Amino acid sequence: MSDIRATFSDAQRQLILASFARQGFLQGMHARIARLEAGHCSIEIPFSPAVSQQHGFFHGGAIGALADTAGGYAAMTQAPEGRDVLTLEYKINFIRPGSGQLLVAEGEVLRAGRNITVTQISVHAVSDGRKMLCAAVQQSIILAPESR
Amino acid sequence: MSDIRATFSDAQRQLILASFARQGFLQGMHARIARLEAGHCSIEIPFSPAVSQQHGFFHGGAIGALADTAGGYAAMTQAPEGRDVLTLEYKINFIRPGSGQLLVAEGEVLRAGRNITVTQISVHAVSDGRKMLCAAVQQSIILAPESR
Amino acid sequence: MSDIRATFSDAQRQLILASFARQGFLQGMHARIARLEAGHCSIEIPFSPAVSQQHGFFHGGAIGALADTAGGYAAMTQAPEGRDVLTLEYKINFIRPGSGQLLVAEGEVLRAGRNITVTQISVHAVSDGRKMLCAAVQQSIILAPESR
Amino acid sequence: MSDIRATFSDAQRQLILASFARQGFLQGMHARIARLEAGHCSIEIPFSPAVSQQHGFFHGGAIGALADTAGGYAAMTQAPEGRDVLTLEYKINFIRPGSGQLLVAEGEVLRAGRNITVTQISVHAVSDGRKMLCAAVQQSIILAPESR
Repeated sequence: MSDIRATFSDAQRQLILASFARQGFLQGMHARIARLEAGHCSIEIPFSPAVSQQHGFFHGGAIGALADTAGGYAAMTQAPEGRDVLTLEYKINFIRPGSGQLLVAEGEVLRAGRNITVTQISVHAVSDGRKMLCAAVQQSIILAPESR
Repeated sequence: MSDIRATFSDAQRQLILASFARQGFLQGMHARIARLEAGHCSIEIPFSPAVSQQHGFFHGGAIGALADTAGGYAAMTQAPEGRDVLTLEYKINFIRPGSGQLLVAEGEVLRAGRNITVTQISVHAVSDGRKMLCAAVQQSIILAPESR
Repeated sequence: MSDIRATFSDAQRQLILASFARQGFLQGMHARIARLEAGHCSIEIPFSPAVSQQHGFFHGGAIGALADTAGGYAAMTQAPEGRDVLTLEYKINFIRPGSGQLLVAEGEVLRAGRNITVTQISVHAVSDGRKMLCAAVQQSIILAPESR
Repeated sequence: MSDIRATFSDAQRQLILASFARQGFLQGMHARIARLEAGHCSIEIPFSPAVSQQHGFFHGGAIGALADTAGGYAAMTQAPEGRDVLTLEYKINFIRPGSGQLLVAEGEVLRAGRNITVTQISVHAVSDGRKMLCAAVQQSIILAPESR
């Protein structure tokens, strides 16, 4: 019953990687794409002062940004070739403090519509190999207007 | 009909400023508190590559983090003296690309409950003196457990 | 700076009233449109067992439905003539139990875009003339596909 | 790694069923609990004019109310014996029009905390045996104050 395409083009993959490389905000967090497949994107950041809050956990803002990005690129795997996407909105529930060496956001497409794609993203903190759910996100993504 | 306290203590103000100063994530964005009053907090960041996305706008992650922080500190002005707060969840609608020299998040308490405080935050980009709404946020804040 | 149109056509008003009249779910709650202006819609329901929960308050489901509808029609005042709208998503924070004789949802357009309109809705319960905020909602509305 | 209790007491089950039976709003929709287990609750409604919107689909308000209720009772299976719960907030993404003979909301607990429980709810419409995802919801539930 799914309308999610099981494959995506190399051209679209290159577009995603190029887009990611241009994001100063994510580069400052040392984010890297760990997995990129049709309908899925995982992004990771290592713990560092640049992504911490006052108690030594991953900052909620970093958790939100990572989730937003993972969901957006998951949606972009479903976009028509050459097309970029924009986040319309997301909602994040913080479930546990993000404590550990690594933060991993895993975005999945729930439905890929013609204009609007809905995703869910889960964010885990990994501490000594143990993966704990820190946040759950629901997000709407819209196709960006075609650039000239 | 409001249950929002019109004043807040100097001690709580100092706690907020000290908490803000310890947040590496916000320091990396050159964030500063522009206004802090009972039930209100405004935070600003100047535009820089550290907060940009691939098209040269303020990054959605920076917009979300700024909004989350402004709402949290607005709520913290209503917390019992000496008490910290945590974000339970927020929802953000992106309304326009954040284009300009300055990003301003203004958080207001809608209701300060015993455990849960609900806030609304608006985020504007300021470009050549013109203030444009970029994002609207609704947020739930909970009192943090008392530290030992 | 607003892009909200200050007027809306009689034809669009008639479309909204006809749409409202066909909604069995709202009719069963004895809902009525109290105010309909460009960028604004208020809808009211009287208290009755049909809209109650187990403690004798207005049911959260009635509060959500009323808010969703008020926001949707507020957005529809900004739609091109003859065009219907659909709710993409909404987020509701329950702020106080809905206690009283009347429930009023007031929807306002924050931004009317070409495809997507963002609204905020506040829901108050009125008890012996006193109006208390029960819920705050943020919503995204999309233009429905043109019907044949 | 889950902190969700695998069993729940008969007393808590009776409390849930009694709470459900007292909800006029749900009774008017002919809602019934289809499955109630530790950390899970499914609720169904048959299609009827009482839950329709203007195009003959399930009304978004009915979809939201059903989801909210299923999530709330899923959370209540994790509450201390004798304790009721309240919805703090939820966010709903509408994914497809709800078209069919039956609407099913399935609520799952993501995390059961001491005060706050986070749930996810999926809502499917069943049409001629085919189950289609109509809505995805994320919700926060709080323990209600102890009644005297």
